[in-house]
Amino acid sequence: MSGRLAVVGIGPGDHRYLTPEAEQALAMADTLYGYGPYLARVSVQSTQAVHPSDNRDERERARDALQHAVDGANVALVSGGDPGVFAMAAAVCEEIEVGPLAWRSLDVSIVPGITAMLAVAARVGAPLGHDFCALSISDNLKPWDLIERRLDAAARAGFVIALYNPISRARPTQLGIALERLRSHLPSSTPVVFGRAIGRPDERVNVMTLETADPTAADMATLIIIGSPETRVIARPERPPLIYTPRAAQGRLP
Amino acid sequence: MSGRLAVVGIGPGDHRYLTPEAEQALAMADTLYGYGPYLARVSVQSTQAVHPSDNRDERERARDALQHAVDGANVALVSGGDPGVFAMAAAVCEEIEVGPLAWRSLDVSIVPGITAMLAVAARVGAPLGHDFCALSISDNLKPWDLIERRLDAAARAGFVIALYNPISRARPTQLGIALERLRSHLPSSTPVVFGRAIGRPDERVNVMTLETADPTAADMATLIIIGSPETRVIARPERPPLIYTPRAAQGRLP
Repeated sequence: MSGRLAVVGIGPGDHRYLTPEAEQALAMADTLYGYGPYLARVSVQSTQAVHPSDNRDERERARDALQHAVDGANVALVSGGDPGVFAMAAAVCEEIEVGPLAWRSLDVSIVPGITAMLAVAARVGAPLGHDFCALSISDNLKPWDLIERRLDAAARAGFVIALYNPISRARPTQLGIALERLRSHLPSSTPVVFGRAIGRPDERVNVMTLETADPTAADMATLIIIGSPETRVIARPERPPLIYTPRAAQGRLP
Repeated sequence: MSGRLAVVGIGPGDHRYLTPEAEQALAMADTLYGYGPYLARVSVQSTQAVHPSDNRDERERARDALQHAVDGANVALVSGGDPGVFAMAAAVCEEIEVGPLAWRSLDVSIVPGITAMLAVAARVGAPLGHDFCALSISDNLKPWDLIERRLDAAARAGFVIALYNPISRARPTQLGIALERLRSHLPSSTPVVFGRAIGRPDERVNVMTLETADPTAADMATLIIIGSPETRVIARPERPPLIYTPRAAQGRLP
């Protein structure tokens, strides 16, 4: 007997960002796994078993969901944003690779979602309108010097940079260090966007410059976009400025 | 009198990827603009005026949509994928910056969508599970040597690389040149994914290696993901392999 596992991206959390494919995958499951606050954002039917877990238990959560599916359940593993971007899809693959052979025969599907950088970018204009990179600055799973080398490479090559996992209680200082490092490569006027909880009641979006960007304004759920030297700000009367990166580039590098 | 403009991402095209926010923005518009094949993928009401345009008229399409909205229409400008990723949102911002002052007062909103790299990644596992970059290799709007410098920088820094706009009738050779360049930085066994039209009847996803990747297998609508040295392939009996990039990195650079 074997069930199946869908790793489902619910986007930034508001129901208006939940795709019909994700909604269907959730509705068809008999068992839901996920980080508690993500599970709290989806509609649960009375017939569905719900297994909320702590933020840090990603490997254990992936293993439990896989084993439950192999035992015959139709499991949805709920992920914030897009499950493929610094989220649960990679954790599930990691466990499949090292786990029992039966896990490799399981019907596993990944349901994409709106990842935070797309939602934040949309709120302010089109800062990701040209070449960009996405980088987690958590050093829980990689050495800090690799993060610094990637920040250097991305800034020097003129990529717009989206930072995931900027800060946590255990890592209060890294965002400040990263911003300081980027200041050595990029103009102080470079636009910087902090965005969190897009579409939810506690949504907050702040536009700053690299010079004024204040790391203490970020929390765990904040996504940060740092412009390239090509990124522009359009001032607008009675409206917030538009931040965008033109589709054309001259090759001006910092 | 002033209307409004929503730049709406419809994802890869299948209705199951259209978010409720996008569906609502389309339903509320009285006028729809967009590249013809994208408009053909959305439901049009009999009361809505439809202005399809050619693929290459992005600036003109943006200007027409802006002026129509400033004249009082409720306009939706339809974009494939996510409008903020190599699509119409940046084109609209460009025109606002250089256009009549009235355009700056307009109510403009961007509705995010599932961009191609997320849809393609979901089909094969989690290749974007760690740091990655997105790069257009069209040199219509930027010098080719800038593209090469960015390919070099991204590969050397160990980013997974998503390539947009890989090829067109006017640019048949660039993808081959880009892949050849990446071969000088990355192991020949590096996983490479070609994906197009995810969720549509003509969907096609091919997993190759950097050594065997065949540029002639790509068309205009293909999105290409090139792994990093950390990207892994899980062979599975009776199922396609899973391609993923682990959340942990050792700092091994090519």
